[in-house]
Amino acid sequence: MIRISFPDGAIREYQPGVTGMEIARSISEGLARKVLAARVNGEVWDASRPITTDATLSLLTWEDTDGKSTFWHSSAHLMAEAVEAIFPGVKFWVGPPIDKGFYYDIDLGDRAISEEQLKQIELLMSDLAKKNSVYERKAVPKAEAVSYFSEKGDEYKLDLLQGLNDGEITFYTQGNFTDLCRGPHIPHTGLIKAVKLTNIAGAYWKGDEKNKQLTRIYGVSFPNQKELDEYLLMLEEAKKRDHRKLGKELGIFTFDDEVGPGLPLWMPNGTVVIEELERLAKETEQDAGYKRVVTPHIAKESLYLTSGHLPYYQESMYPAMEMEGTKYYLKAMNCPHHHKIFAAESRSYKELPLRLAEYGTCYRYEQSGELFGLMRVRCLHMNDAHIYCTREQFADEFRAVNDMYLKYFKIFGIDKYVMRLSLHDPAKLGKKYIDEPELWLETEAMVRRVLIESNIPFIEVPDEGAFYGPKIDVQIWSAIGREFTLATNQVDFAQGRRFKLNFTNKDNQPETPLIIHRAPLGTHERFIGFLLEHYAGKFPLWLAPQQVRILPISDKFLPYAQEVLKQLKKADIRAELDDRSEKIGKKIRDTELMRVPYMFVIGEKEVNEHKVAVRKQGQGDQGAKDVSEIISILKNEITERQ
Amino acid sequence: MIRISFPDGAIREYQPGVTGMEIARSISEGLARKVLAARVNGEVWDASRPITTDATLSLLTWEDTDGKSTFWHSSAHLMAEAVEAIFPGVKFWVGPPIDKGFYYDIDLGDRAISEEQLKQIELLMSDLAKKNSVYERKAVPKAEAVSYFSEKGDEYKLDLLQGLNDGEITFYTQGNFTDLCRGPHIPHTGLIKAVKLTNIAGAYWKGDEKNKQLTRIYGVSFPNQKELDEYLLMLEEAKKRDHRKLGKELGIFTFDDEVGPGLPLWMPNGTVVIEELERLAKETEQDAGYKRVVTPHIAKESLYLTSGHLPYYQESMYPAMEMEGTKYYLKAMNCPHHHKIFAAESRSYKELPLRLAEYGTCYRYEQSGELFGLMRVRCLHMNDAHIYCTREQFADEFRAVNDMYLKYFKIFGIDKYVMRLSLHDPAKLGKKYIDEPELWLETEAMVRRVLIESNIPFIEVPDEGAFYGPKIDVQIWSAIGREFTLATNQVDFAQGRRFKLNFTNKDNQPETPLIIHRAPLGTHERFIGFLLEHYAGKFPLWLAPQQVRILPISDKFLPYAQEVLKQLKKADIRAELDDRSEKIGKKIRDTELMRVPYMFVIGEKEVNEHKVAVRKQGQGDQGAKDVSEIISILKNEITERQ
Repeated sequence: MIRISFPDGAIREYQPGVTGMEIARSISEGLARKVLAARVNGEVWDASRPITTDATLSLLTWEDTDGKSTFWHSSAHLMAEAVEAIFPGVKFWVGPPIDKGFYYDIDLGDRAISEEQLKQIELLMSDLAKKNSVYERKAVPKAEAVSYFSEKGDEYKLDLLQGLNDGEITFYTQGNFTDLCRGPHIPHTGLIKAVKLTNIAGAYWKGDEKNKQLTRIYGVSFPNQKELDEYLLMLEEAKKRDHRKLGKELGIFTFDDEVGPGLPLWMPNGTVVIEELERLAKETEQDAGYKRVVTPHIAKESLYLTSGHLPYYQESMYPAMEMEGTKYYLKAMNCPHHHKIFAAESRSYKELPLRLAEYGTCYRYEQSGELFGLMRVRCLHMNDAHIYCTREQFADEFRAVNDMYLKYFKIFGIDKYVMRLSLHDPAKLGKKYIDEPELWLETEAMVRRVLIESNIPFIEVPDEGAFYGPKIDVQIWSAIGREFTLATNQVDFAQGRRFKLNFTNKDNQPETPLIIHRAPLGTHERFIGFLLEHYAGKFPLWLAPQQVRILPISDKFLPYAQEVLKQLKKADIRAELDDRSEKIGKKIRDTELMRVPYMFVIGEKEVNEHKVAVRKQGQGDQGAKDVSEIISILKNEITERQ
Repeated sequence: MIRISFPDGAIREYQPGVTGMEIARSISEGLARKVLAARVNGEVWDASRPITTDATLSLLTWEDTDGKSTFWHSSAHLMAEAVEAIFPGVKFWVGPPIDKGFYYDIDLGDRAISEEQLKQIELLMSDLAKKNSVYERKAVPKAEAVSYFSEKGDEYKLDLLQGLNDGEITFYTQGNFTDLCRGPHIPHTGLIKAVKLTNIAGAYWKGDEKNKQLTRIYGVSFPNQKELDEYLLMLEEAKKRDHRKLGKELGIFTFDDEVGPGLPLWMPNGTVVIEELERLAKETEQDAGYKRVVTPHIAKESLYLTSGHLPYYQESMYPAMEMEGTKYYLKAMNCPHHHKIFAAESRSYKELPLRLAEYGTCYRYEQSGELFGLMRVRCLHMNDAHIYCTREQFADEFRAVNDMYLKYFKIFGIDKYVMRLSLHDPAKLGKKYIDEPELWLETEAMVRRVLIESNIPFIEVPDEGAFYGPKIDVQIWSAIGREFTLATNQVDFAQGRRFKLNFTNKDNQPETPLIIHRAPLGTHERFIGFLLEHYAGKFPLWLAPQQVRILPISDKFLPYAQEVLKQLKKADIRAELDDRSEKIGKKIRDTELMRVPYMFVIGEKEVNEHKVAVRKQGQGDQGAKDVSEIISILKNEITERQ
């Protein structure tokens, strides 16, 4: 018998050769119907693959990221089957799952796919899916695989085979389609109930523009029609709320060719949002006992050799500037600079926890093709801080950081979120992960305990930790249900040693601090991009670049309007006066277009009664109010960040 | 007769061949006694040199920068005379005036100068000065000069002669010393009444470490003993107030070898000062109608080709980072980025003046040897803004900027300041200066008028304008009388056109805006360096990193002290509690060392009466006060920035 350990800690015995699906069935038929794949000893497998030794097992469903990925990768194979049926003789390169859906890169020869044909492929996929074809895995000797694809004349798969050795080559077949593929796949095509092919694009073979251009078909699929419908609706709404469109209309940010791709210039309205976010962060961090620092944007090569970012992280950094025989790099992260501030003075345990915060601007190299509005940029204003603490202080500090996340979620009306706890893989200690097996287990357990105690929804992801410790990535959903990976919270027991950081402990001995890296608001770039979509540009009052616009119905009310403007400015409310000689209807429409939260309309009656007619965004007419009264309402709304 | 124009606009006629000194004497003997040199048609001349054509003339005294420079350069010659007398056979390289004083680089052969001998040189200089030796100028044909120095075996002067042509070679002789020198010099040695030789250092010939090392003697001299005494006293006080020493003691900033020279890391206490300065700037600029922006720290090469900084300013910039076939540069100034924000939207005259402000961080390459604490750095946080306006708006905008300077001077207790108005040189139009003779005269006149109308002390300096327009450099003096060049205010009529900026004017035509570059608080680096010296580290309450320290006399008063701390924090006062079990005397001394403005001492009596015993820095015991009472006193002091 073999012993299978389950995520809840239970251990059960099975016959050797049992499959994930059989185990699922032994638990319940309902579960078995939902199983898409199985994680066996940290690796994702077909649910139908026999398990022959003791193992840890998680059954993966649509709720799991890896379950979804497997589902989408299998959908790519289904699409390939349909494409091959309609375009005989096509050749396939790779067909991976992506963040949301899948694609396949295809060599169509000199053919092209029309919109109509795309629809045809989509329909055929649905038909093929209904056949419930099983995805069959078959291990193939290299010689046999080479001869199979040589006969087919498929140079792409032959190219892939070059990098593979005997014993690691598998074919997958469903219906009439066979592919060289390491898997895993879902049990059968019948699980794919809803398909939408979303886009056709050109893609150079191996991403190299000197190579042939292949046709890339993007698609997305779901286990039921309802989820697809919701997804398409969300896409439509997301288009209206596109942060690039809103960012331009509302004067939030711009790009310039001579400055460079991925380098946003923040316009005055965007800068207001930045400064309000920084004010929130500073207040919050001050209350939480953080100290602020300011560090340069560059450093010598040697700093990044000490940190280990060079050479391992080099491809994500800007190239070096060489002068006086020394290489300087733009910083891609703030940690090494903060560590130097920790090291600048001799530290005692009495000073810990020391929490150093900075809205540091980092520069990271992203491929031009990957850049996307504020979501993928090269310049990142990061809500960064590093907490240096003892092991005894760690749990409290980590909990406080999580609480800070929750506080922010509340302020921004983020109702749906999940924390992804990324763990190490014991097999990769000393390679991908620093070789401290006990520290890994200890800190992972500490983090897990904090999350459980704080009642925070989280999932565990094996083999995705940082090289210096476990980390939490925070995923949030915008008001229209789109997912964003925003912020991170990491434990670090390696950098302290690399930088020879220490404090004098109670026994008067030098001790290396644990370090927590945290950035609850992520970067300005991504967070403001998120907020633009989340609020559809209608920022709450405290964040709104313009808070009030004063609209006199006629020029003769301008003197009174000026007086009101002065009072608002004195109260530090961001107000503007529309003094154009336009009709009031146009003034109101223009104000709505700029998503200004409050309008004060001024006519004869308001002047006579020393009032303003208040209109609130989304709520309409609020009646006439004394200026001092409405100012105090606004001030309260701002202070409360409602 | 020739016509001589004076700075006050007067024009008088003289015989051709009249000298500056003769003209001075014709005005008054008192003036003649003070004249050190003359500026003739923008060039500084010996006061004894004949003027043979119509000319503009300024008589230069000790009050003029060029007068001082001439005085110090002549003192270098006097020093050389003394050195040659004591060390026969020495050879001289160059002996220029510097910011404060002069030096001469000397080849002593295999001899060295002892401290005692330095004193001996100093004494001999005084004796030689009393001889009232005249500095005599003599034009010499190149052949004669070469043969003179060949005979002397002086390879240094022969080297200098290589770069000179017939007609531009002059010798100067005073007493027994003759030097190849383009001058000018003061009338005679008797004007040098007080001399101090301050330092001996090694200096490679031509600054190249592969060359021979010469001996550099530094000195300073004055027209009377009193000024020298004051200067030496100031130096002594400045040593105590050295911003590098205070910066370390007070935890303001630090440098780190792995980060790089000239790149300060701002520690928590320094960051408080930075944030308070930024708060002041933001409030001031908001009241003055500025809008804030945020721009990246890098840009493509093409941006700096458009601005003209490349290639002309390249040696002051960090080297390029090359990627994707494009060169990126760290920004050395914020203007081009701001111009791009101006250009990002179509602008109407109704939007002008548009004032874009940013505390932008720039990077400039300074030679390692030139770096000095916070005074000469490579990373500059600049209190920058650019004002885009019409010609009609220019005078008001420029005046408002000057008023802002004066407002800041008042806040920081800067009583002595002067503005240096740097003008163009008509002879260098199209070369050093953009070729717009009328715009130069027009804007220079506008600036001059504003300065006169605002009653601001200023001096005019020909041939020191920026290439794009006239500029004002602001010089201020610290509390101990040391001079700092801090801030700048520049007119720019060139960049607007280079960047093709325009707005639609009232006639619906595109028009290029004038641009004002301004940075009243200069950079954080230099300004905080200045403030450390100016306040001797004793920052006023609003700027102080720690505002209050609470000192319980014994541990048993800790609970009450904690209560007081909480109240202070609630009132947003930066307070700390000294909870060490130390004697109160030591606690007070430590607090004084950290220059904390207020101490609250807590003993039995204070606990019983619910008070704190207040001690104020520089004013001592303020008696016992209710906590709420002293908080309101402090809050008021902070708000008023007293």
